[in-house]
Amino acid sequence: MDFSHDARTQELIERVRTFVDDHVLPAEHTLDEQLAAAPDAWGAPPIVGELQAKARAEGLWNLFLPGADGAGLSALQYAPLAEITGWSPRLAPVTFNCAAPDTGNMEVLHDFGTPAQKERWLRPLLEGSIRSSFCMTEPDAASSDATNIATRIRREGDSYVITGRKWWSTGAMSPAAQIFIVMGKTDPDADRHRQQSMILVPRDTPGVRIVRPLSVFGYDDRDHGGHAEIAFEDVRVPAENLIGDEGSGFAIAQARLGPGRIHHCMRALGMGERALALLTARANARHTFGRSLADQGVIREWAAEARIQLESLRLLVLKTAWLMDTVGNRAAMTEIQAIKIAVPRAVQTIIDRAIQVHGGAGVSADTPLAELYAGVRSLRLADGPDEVHLSSLGRAQLRL
Amino acid sequence: MDFSHDARTQELIERVRTFVDDHVLPAEHTLDEQLAAAPDAWGAPPIVGELQAKARAEGLWNLFLPGADGAGLSALQYAPLAEITGWSPRLAPVTFNCAAPDTGNMEVLHDFGTPAQKERWLRPLLEGSIRSSFCMTEPDAASSDATNIATRIRREGDSYVITGRKWWSTGAMSPAAQIFIVMGKTDPDADRHRQQSMILVPRDTPGVRIVRPLSVFGYDDRDHGGHAEIAFEDVRVPAENLIGDEGSGFAIAQARLGPGRIHHCMRALGMGERALALLTARANARHTFGRSLADQGVIREWAAEARIQLESLRLLVLKTAWLMDTVGNRAAMTEIQAIKIAVPRAVQTIIDRAIQVHGGAGVSADTPLAELYAGVRSLRLADGPDEVHLSSLGRAQLRL
Amino acid sequence: MDFSHDARTQELIERVRTFVDDHVLPAEHTLDEQLAAAPDAWGAPPIVGELQAKARAEGLWNLFLPGADGAGLSALQYAPLAEITGWSPRLAPVTFNCAAPDTGNMEVLHDFGTPAQKERWLRPLLEGSIRSSFCMTEPDAASSDATNIATRIRREGDSYVITGRKWWSTGAMSPAAQIFIVMGKTDPDADRHRQQSMILVPRDTPGVRIVRPLSVFGYDDRDHGGHAEIAFEDVRVPAENLIGDEGSGFAIAQARLGPGRIHHCMRALGMGERALALLTARANARHTFGRSLADQGVIREWAAEARIQLESLRLLVLKTAWLMDTVGNRAAMTEIQAIKIAVPRAVQTIIDRAIQVHGGAGVSADTPLAELYAGVRSLRLADGPDEVHLSSLGRAQLRL
Amino acid sequence: MDFSHDARTQELIERVRTFVDDHVLPAEHTLDEQLAAAPDAWGAPPIVGELQAKARAEGLWNLFLPGADGAGLSALQYAPLAEITGWSPRLAPVTFNCAAPDTGNMEVLHDFGTPAQKERWLRPLLEGSIRSSFCMTEPDAASSDATNIATRIRREGDSYVITGRKWWSTGAMSPAAQIFIVMGKTDPDADRHRQQSMILVPRDTPGVRIVRPLSVFGYDDRDHGGHAEIAFEDVRVPAENLIGDEGSGFAIAQARLGPGRIHHCMRALGMGERALALLTARANARHTFGRSLADQGVIREWAAEARIQLESLRLLVLKTAWLMDTVGNRAAMTEIQAIKIAVPRAVQTIIDRAIQVHGGAGVSADTPLAELYAGVRSLRLADGPDEVHLSSLGRAQLRL
Repeated sequence: MDFSHDARTQELIERVRTFVDDHVLPAEHTLDEQLAAAPDAWGAPPIVGELQAKARAEGLWNLFLPGADGAGLSALQYAPLAEITGWSPRLAPVTFNCAAPDTGNMEVLHDFGTPAQKERWLRPLLEGSIRSSFCMTEPDAASSDATNIATRIRREGDSYVITGRKWWSTGAMSPAAQIFIVMGKTDPDADRHRQQSMILVPRDTPGVRIVRPLSVFGYDDRDHGGHAEIAFEDVRVPAENLIGDEGSGFAIAQARLGPGRIHHCMRALGMGERALALLTARANARHTFGRSLADQGVIREWAAEARIQLESLRLLVLKTAWLMDTVGNRAAMTEIQAIKIAVPRAVQTIIDRAIQVHGGAGVSADTPLAELYAGVRSLRLADGPDEVHLSSLGRAQLRL
Repeated sequence: MDFSHDARTQELIERVRTFVDDHVLPAEHTLDEQLAAAPDAWGAPPIVGELQAKARAEGLWNLFLPGADGAGLSALQYAPLAEITGWSPRLAPVTFNCAAPDTGNMEVLHDFGTPAQKERWLRPLLEGSIRSSFCMTEPDAASSDATNIATRIRREGDSYVITGRKWWSTGAMSPAAQIFIVMGKTDPDADRHRQQSMILVPRDTPGVRIVRPLSVFGYDDRDHGGHAEIAFEDVRVPAENLIGDEGSGFAIAQARLGPGRIHHCMRALGMGERALALLTARANARHTFGRSLADQGVIREWAAEARIQLESLRLLVLKTAWLMDTVGNRAAMTEIQAIKIAVPRAVQTIIDRAIQVHGGAGVSADTPLAELYAGVRSLRLADGPDEVHLSSLGRAQLRL
Repeated sequence: MDFSHDARTQELIERVRTFVDDHVLPAEHTLDEQLAAAPDAWGAPPIVGELQAKARAEGLWNLFLPGADGAGLSALQYAPLAEITGWSPRLAPVTFNCAAPDTGNMEVLHDFGTPAQKERWLRPLLEGSIRSSFCMTEPDAASSDATNIATRIRREGDSYVITGRKWWSTGAMSPAAQIFIVMGKTDPDADRHRQQSMILVPRDTPGVRIVRPLSVFGYDDRDHGGHAEIAFEDVRVPAENLIGDEGSGFAIAQARLGPGRIHHCMRALGMGERALALLTARANARHTFGRSLADQGVIREWAAEARIQLESLRLLVLKTAWLMDTVGNRAAMTEIQAIKIAVPRAVQTIIDRAIQVHGGAGVSADTPLAELYAGVRSLRLADGPDEVHLSSLGRAQLRL
Repeated sequence: MDFSHDARTQELIERVRTFVDDHVLPAEHTLDEQLAAAPDAWGAPPIVGELQAKARAEGLWNLFLPGADGAGLSALQYAPLAEITGWSPRLAPVTFNCAAPDTGNMEVLHDFGTPAQKERWLRPLLEGSIRSSFCMTEPDAASSDATNIATRIRREGDSYVITGRKWWSTGAMSPAAQIFIVMGKTDPDADRHRQQSMILVPRDTPGVRIVRPLSVFGYDDRDHGGHAEIAFEDVRVPAENLIGDEGSGFAIAQARLGPGRIHHCMRALGMGERALALLTARANARHTFGRSLADQGVIREWAAEARIQLESLRLLVLKTAWLMDTVGNRAAMTEIQAIKIAVPRAVQTIIDRAIQVHGGAGVSADTPLAELYAGVRSLRLADGPDEVHLSSLGRAQLRL
C-alpha cells in the first residue's frame, strides 16, 4: 500500500497546477467580459481558443484519454489532474480538451467506433476543432431506468430513422457541437439491457430540431453550449452511423459511466477545494464585532469538516480509479456508486458554507460560488438521482 | 391555550387561498411570457397590475398593515395570509400590495414618518402607484454589525448630504421604485446604537447612481426591480427627509425587523408547502422500476419530515406573532431569532428534496423550484447570516 | 389563537415546578444511595413512598387522569405538568402517581374496565398501593405490525387460557406489579384489527413465569421494576378478566397510545430542558485555553439549536393535546405520529451534546445524562421504531 | 499509488480473521457466563487466558509493537489487524495482547524506558502476565488543555512524591494492573509543554487509593478492569521511576497519541463492520407488513451510507498510518486529528442504526450493539472532545 503519486503524475500535477494558476484562473474575468459583450451567443468565447492553444503547446492536451491517441494516462494518473481542473470548471477542462461531454464521447468512439467513425468524428474532437453532445435523457421518462427510454431507432434499408425527444443534451446549443451521440431503442422487445443502441447523428441532419435551451438555477451555461432540448423527427442517417452492434447501447453507456464518474467526482473535489480556499480568504479578511471570521468557532468547524471530507473522499475516488485500472469497471461497482453519491453532496455542503461566509457576495456573480453550487447540485441528479444509487448500493450490501 | 384561528382570520384565509388558487397561480405562466417578451425591462409586467386591480376590488389589499390605513390585522391574523402568498412569491405578495421591501418601508413611514412624509410617500405606496427600496447593506461591511456601516449622512444647513455605497437594494433597478430609505451614520462618535439615521432619498435626486444589478444564483429578479448596487455621491436632500430624530436609525431598523421576519418566515413556509405539493404530485406521477416514487421509502420519509418541519415551525412563527402582538418585539426576541434561523433552512431542505424528486426539471425553469430555492437560500443571509443569530441566541441561553 | 395557559394550568405548573425543585431533584442522590444499599432488590426504594405521601398531601396526585377519578385535567392541561416531571424521570412521575406504564393501564381500566375490574385493580392503582405492567411486545415478532402477535388467548369454558412470551414488560420485575394487562389473539382468523384482545392476569397466577430482566444500555431500571421477559404457560384466568369484548384489543391499544405519546413526548422535552440546564451550568463553570466553554461558538450554537428545537416541538405537542381534547385521537393522527418521531430524536441530540460538554462525567453516573440518554433512545423504539411511523406519515402525506 | 496490502499483511489479515471467527466470536457467550458467575470480580475471566494461550501458540501476539520485541509490523501493516479485533472489542484485542491501555504503555516503555524499567515492567507486559493503567485525566480539569493538569510530582531526595487525583484510569480496578503510568507536573513554572512528566507507580505503593469505579452508560467494563478514580496521596517512588527526563511528559504523551489513534480508529471501523453485519442479518431475517426489512428503502439507504463511510474513512486511517510510517507523527497531524474526529462519530451512527433495526433487542444485552455504542461514544471524548480537535484542525486550515 502506497499513497504517493508516481513521478510522471507528480510532474503533471505540478505543471497543470501551475498552468491553471497562471493562465486559467486569471482568465475567468475575461470570460465574463466576453460573455457580457455577446449576450446572445452560444459557444466558447475567444479566450477559450487562446487557452487551448497555449495548453496544447505545452503538451497538456487530451489528458483524459488513455493510449496513444491521448496522453496515455491511467485513470489513477489522470484523476488528480481532473481535480485541478475543477478549480475552474467553466474554463480549465475545456482548456486541456478534457471537458464533458466530449471526453465521454471520445472514449465511446475510441473504444467502440469503426475506423471510419474515428476518422470522421474522433479525430476533429481530439483536435478540439469541433465539439459534441450526448443525447440520453428524455423529458418524459425517469432515465435512471434505461427501459424507460422512448426514443426509437428503426432500421430502414441502409439507414436508421430516429424519432424521439431528448433534453439535457449538454453543449448542443452551440453550433460547434457538430455531432450528437443518440441513445434509443432498436428493439423494444429484446432483453431489458439489449433493447438500446447508440448512433451518431450529425447536427445538420434533416429532422434534428433544437427546441430550446434549459437553464440550471438561473444559469444558461452558454459558454459550454448550454443544455438543449432536441426533437428528433424522422431523422435518417446511414446504417454505418450505429456505434457497435444493435443492442449494445446499454453496455456502451455503462462503459462510458465509470471514467465519467471519476472525472466528475475529481472535478467536484477541485470545486470543493476552491470553495474552501475562497472561504479561507474571506474568513481572514472579514471582521465583525472586533474579530475576524477565522477566529470564530463555527467557521473553524466548517473548515475542519471540509478538510476531513475532501481528504477522505479523494482517497475513495483515487481507490476507485485504481480498481478500474487494475480489476475493471465491474469489480469497482460498489466504489463507483459510492463516489457518485458521496462526493457531490459533500462538496455541495462545502460550497454552501463558503457562500454563507461571503454573505450577499456569495449568491451573486461576484464570486464563482453560486455557479459552482448550481453545477455540483446538478451532479446529484445527473446519471440518475443519488437515491437510485443509494438504493442499489444498499441492496447489494444487504445481500447475505 | 387555543390553536384555532379567529373567525375573521379564518374567513380571510379562505378568501386569499381562493384568490391565489384561482387567479395568481394560473398567472405565473403569463408572467414568464411577458418577461420573455421584454428581456431588458426592469419592473412589473402588465399582469401584475391586473392582479392588483382584481385583489383591491375584492378588498384584499394592504393586508400586512395594522390600523386604519391598512387592513387592520394583528401580526397573528396576517401571518397565515402571508403564508399563502408564499406559494407564489413572485406574484402573490405584490398582488395584495404586501411585497417586501415596500411593506417594511410603509411600516417605517407609518410608525415614524411625519405627516408630510406620509402624504408624499406613504399614500402612493399604499395605493400601489409607486414602489420603494431599502438601502441598508453595504458591499464593504459585514452589516450584521451596524457599527460597520460606512455611509455618511452629514447635516449641511437645511440639507443632509449622503455619501456611500449600498447594495442588495431590492427593487431599485425598476423606475417604479421612486423612493429609497437610506441608512447611514449621522454621528460616528455617538453610542454604538445612536450613530445611525434613516433618510428619504427620492430616486431622481442628483448624485444617486444605480451602479449595476446583482443576481441571485443566476436570477436577476427583474420583475421585482432586481437588486441594485447604488452609489450615493454627495446626494443632497432637504433636512425634513430625515425619518425620526438623528440617531434613531438603529431603533427604527430593529422595529422594522420584527414584522419583517414574521412575513418572511410565513412566506417561506408557504414556499415549503408549495414545494411539498409539487413533490407529492410528481411522486405520484413518476414511475421507475415498476413503482411510483410515492411508494418508495425514502420519498415517504422526505414527505413525513417536511410535514413535521412545516407544522412545528408554523406554530413557532405564529407564537412569535402572538408575542409581538401581546408583549412586544423585545419580549419576543428569542422567538424572533429562532424563526429567522430555523424556518429558511428547513424550507431549503424541503425544496432541495422536491428538486431531487423532479430530476432535471427541478433545477430548470420548468418548475418554480430552483427559483424558490434561490429565494429561500438568500433568506439565510438577509439581515445577517444565520450564524450571527445562532451565536446571539446561544449566548442568551447560556447566560445563567 | 392564544398561546397562554389557563389559570388553573398556570397554577399547577408553578406548584409542580416548586415541588420538583424542592423535593424531587434533591432526592435523586438519596435514591442512588438506597439503590446501592440494596443491590439485588427490584422495586421502589423507601424515598419513593415518602415523596408520594408528600405529593398526595399537597393534592398533586393522579394528575394525568381526566374526570372525577383523577385530577380532572384535559390533555392540554396535563401536558406542561408531564414536562416538568421529565426533569427527573426516575422519581418525578412516580411521585405524582403519573408513571408509565401505570398511567396507560389506569386509562384502559378507567375507559374500558367493568365495575368489578375497576374496583379490584383501578382503585389500588389510583391509590398507588400496587403497580402494574403492560405485556404487549414479543421477542419473536416485529410488534409494530399487530398481526404479528403470537400470544394466544383461548376461551375454555368460563376461563381464558393464555400462552405466549412477552418482553419489555416494564415494571414487572418488581413484586409491586400485581397485575399485568396482556395483549394476545383470541381469533387469528378475524379481520386484521379484530384478532386481538386484552386480558387481566394477576401476577401470581399459575403459569406466569418471569424469565429474566432486560437491560437498556447497561441500566436495569430496577427502581421502576425493570423490564421483564415473561413466559405465559397455559395461564388460566376467569373469563371476566377480559377487558372489553373479544377482538377489541387493537382498538383499546390505539386509544391507549394517544395520551401515552403526549406524556412520553412532554416528559422527553423536560429531559431535554434538564440536559440544557446542565449543559449551561457546565459551560459556564468549565474553562479551557483561558475561556469558558460558554464563550465558544460551537457550544453557543448547540444551546441555540436546543432552544429552537424545544420551543417548536413543545408547541407541536401542545397542539396535539389540544386536538385530542377537541377533535379526538383519530383527527390528531398526523400530529400524534409527528411528535412520536420528532421529539425523542431532538432530545437525544440535546442530551448527547450535554454529555459532550461534560466530558467523561457525561457518560458516567456522576450526571444523570447517560441514563437520560438511554431512556430517550428507547423511546425511538417503543411502540414501533420511528421508521414505521415516518413511512406511515409519509404515505398519508403523499396521498393526493 | 497502490491500494493493495503487501503479502505479509495480507497473510496476517487472513490468519487473524480466521482466528477471530473461529475462536473469539464464539467465546463471547462464555465471557458473559463467566462474568455472570462472578458478579463482583474485577479483571479477565478464565476464557481470556485460554484465548491468549491459543493466539500466542499461533504466533499472533504483540502484533501492535514494531521492532524485535513485538511482531515487527509497521503502523500500516498493523492497522487492518486492529480493525479485525474491533469486531469483538471485549475479547479480541486482549487475546492478541493488543489491548489499550497496555499497548500505549508498552510503547512508552519501549521507546522511552530505561533498561531497568523495561526489564521490570515491559517484559511482563509483553508476556501478558501483568496489565497496566495510564493515569492522565483528572476529574477537576479539562484535560484537553495539558496545562490544566493539577497532579504534582515533587522531587524529594532520591524519590518523587506524587499528589493528585486521576480518573478514567482504564483497567485499574483489576488487581492484574500492577503498574500505573502517572502524568503530573514536575515544574508548574516551566514552559507550557515542559511542565509535565510521566512516572511509574506500582499499584501497591503506599498512598495509592482506588476510590471507586466509573461506569459508561451503565457498563462497568469489569472484565477489562473497569475505569477507576484513583487518589495519589503523598505517594513516594524511587527517582529512577521517572520516564525520560523531567519535563518530557507532554512530548511522550504526544508520541503515545499517534499510534493510539490509529488503533482506536481501526478498531472502531471493525465495530462498525460488525454492526453492519448484524444489521444485515437482522434486516434479512425480520419481516413486517409482508416484506423483509432488507426490502425497505430506508434500511437500504442506511446500509449504503454505512458502506460509504466505512470505505472512505478506512482509507483515511490507512493513509494516516502510512504517513506516520514514512514522514512521522508531526507531518501527519492533520490526518491524525481528522480520523480522531470523523471515525468514532460515523461508527456511532452505524451502530445507532443497527440498534434501530434490532428494536428492543438492540438496546439490551441480547446483542453487542448497545455496549459497542457506549464504547464508541466514549471515543468522542477520550483524549479531548471532538470539538477541541475540530477547532484546532479548523484553525490550521484557515491559516493563510
